[in-house]
Amino acid sequence: MNAVLFRDSQVRVMEDTVTNAEKYFGQFCSLLAAYTRKTARLRDKADQLVKQLIGFANTENPEMRATMRSFAEDLAKVQDYRQAEVERLETKVINPLKLYGVQIKQTRAEIKKFKHVRKNEIKQLEKLEKLRQKSPSDRHMISQAETSVQRASVDASRTTHQLEEAVDAFQKQKLKDLQKIFLDFVTIEMIFHAKAVEVYSSAFQALENYDLDRDLEDFRVKMRGVYEHSDARLLTDTFPSQAVPWSFAGQGTQSTTRSRGTEEESVDDSAGEDPVEDLGGRGPGLHQ
Amino acid sequence: MNAVLFRDSQVRVMEDTVTNAEKYFGQFCSLLAAYTRKTARLRDKADQLVKQLIGFANTENPEMRATMRSFAEDLAKVQDYRQAEVERLETKVINPLKLYGVQIKQTRAEIKKFKHVRKNEIKQLEKLEKLRQKSPSDRHMISQAETSVQRASVDASRTTHQLEEAVDAFQKQKLKDLQKIFLDFVTIEMIFHAKAVEVYSSAFQALENYDLDRDLEDFRVKMRGVYEHSDARLLTDTFPSQAVPWSFAGQGTQSTTRSRGTEEESVDDSAGEDPVEDLGGRGPGLHQ
Repeated sequence: MNAVLFRDSQVRVMEDTVTNAEKYFGQFCSLLAAYTRKTARLRDKADQLVKQLIGFANTENPEMRATMRSFAEDLAKVQDYRQAEVERLETKVINPLKLYGVQIKQTRAEIKKFKHVRKNEIKQLEKLEKLRQKSPSDRHMISQAETSVQRASVDASRTTHQLEEAVDAFQKQKLKDLQKIFLDFVTIEMIFHAKAVEVYSSAFQALENYDLDRDLEDFRVKMRGVYEHSDARLLTDTFPSQAVPWSFAGQGTQSTTRSRGTEEESVDDSAGEDPVEDLGGRGPGLHQ
Repeated sequence: MNAVLFRDSQVRVMEDTVTNAEKYFGQFCSLLAAYTRKTARLRDKADQLVKQLIGFANTENPEMRATMRSFAEDLAKVQDYRQAEVERLETKVINPLKLYGVQIKQTRAEIKKFKHVRKNEIKQLEKLEKLRQKSPSDRHMISQAETSVQRASVDASRTTHQLEEAVDAFQKQKLKDLQKIFLDFVTIEMIFHAKAVEVYSSAFQALENYDLDRDLEDFRVKMRGVYEHSDARLLTDTFPSQAVPWSFAGQGTQSTTRSRGTEEESVDDSAGEDPVEDLGGRGPGLHQ
């Protein structure tokens, strides 16, 4: 094996190192960016669910209303933590991976420089060999060519050292950064998941404490109250032969009365028309 | 206020209950289905990242290779838990919400039936009123009409009771199921997040235990070994005037040697060609 070939295989190891880094860091970057985008979509869907939960809560009796609002608040909290997760992933994982493009370019330039110098070395060696075959007796020319080879060889040797240092620094930085980036990824994910466990634990308690019987009691009182009242009136009102108000009611009048008549009986409805008690400014502008 | 109007407002409360349930359960169902789909997308992206991590691990030295494989395995474990989350959400959250369509249809049918009976009651009352105005002395006809009114009224009363029971049952089931569905949602999420914390904690340890210096040592030995060897040979080989193997090398021969010559020096490369040690059958078929 010749020294030039050794250098060839050495530069191949270096090129592979840089090429692999370029390939895989690019993949890591785009996949983690996609992962972060999907996380943001998940947050969006959960935010929409929060809004619907609050809307629904406002149509329910106090017991379920309080339970659903509390659940919506907890779900919103998890989305706030998810938003923090998204931001941290962008800052501490995706951006550092993006920066690798620059470092890879620099190392590629070093390799290119080395290849150029190595080419010159081979050229000088070939020149010397030709001279030796054509004019083996021309000691002066051969001596000159040997000096050129030596100079080219020293150049190549120095450049190889420089390249080696550049690739060593690149590799060191790469390994260090990889460890840091994935440690950051794991830490960010861990914090998010731990916070989610915490919030969902309290959400679980709130949902479990929901008093179904009390809620149904409210519902029945409202329904029965209206019903029994009307039933009692029905039996007394209908048979005494006086004219009763309904008899004046055409369809038009009746429907007007309907919309007025709700005030007394339909507590549900007045609940539905309450100004929506927002969860402290949460809403579409939440994650800006 | 008349009994008929009371019933009108009562049926309005009932209709609102069913309409709200239909509206919000539909929203909950489609939003939670979307939430589940986004979770599945997130799992897909992380699965792709796992594959790239294994691919990258195979191009690295033993220390980083072991670290990246271990990290990939942990990340894959989290995706398995995420897959379990997706399946549980479908079974215990989305499917029960879908079933509400049927229950809502049944309750709507009860309300329709009630409205029909109520219409008849109003018709009989209007007939009686007309008779009283047109033929106030026809006691027989008025008595017959009064009987019809009474019968229609009893019908309406009975149907109202039935409707009330149906809506009561519907409301009870709705509240109970809502509590159960969201408790299940919270439980499923809690389990997933808790498992993720557990796995990421071990992933953190593995990443932190990564020995950068040992890895760099491997890399340097490989690079320097090749370099110093070639450098030493260069100085001794070039100047003695024997023909050296490279001089026979045209471009073609040289490139053949390149591809043969890697065996000895390029440990990186042979690592790259290792049969990919799969993570126990993980892969595209993972989440089926």
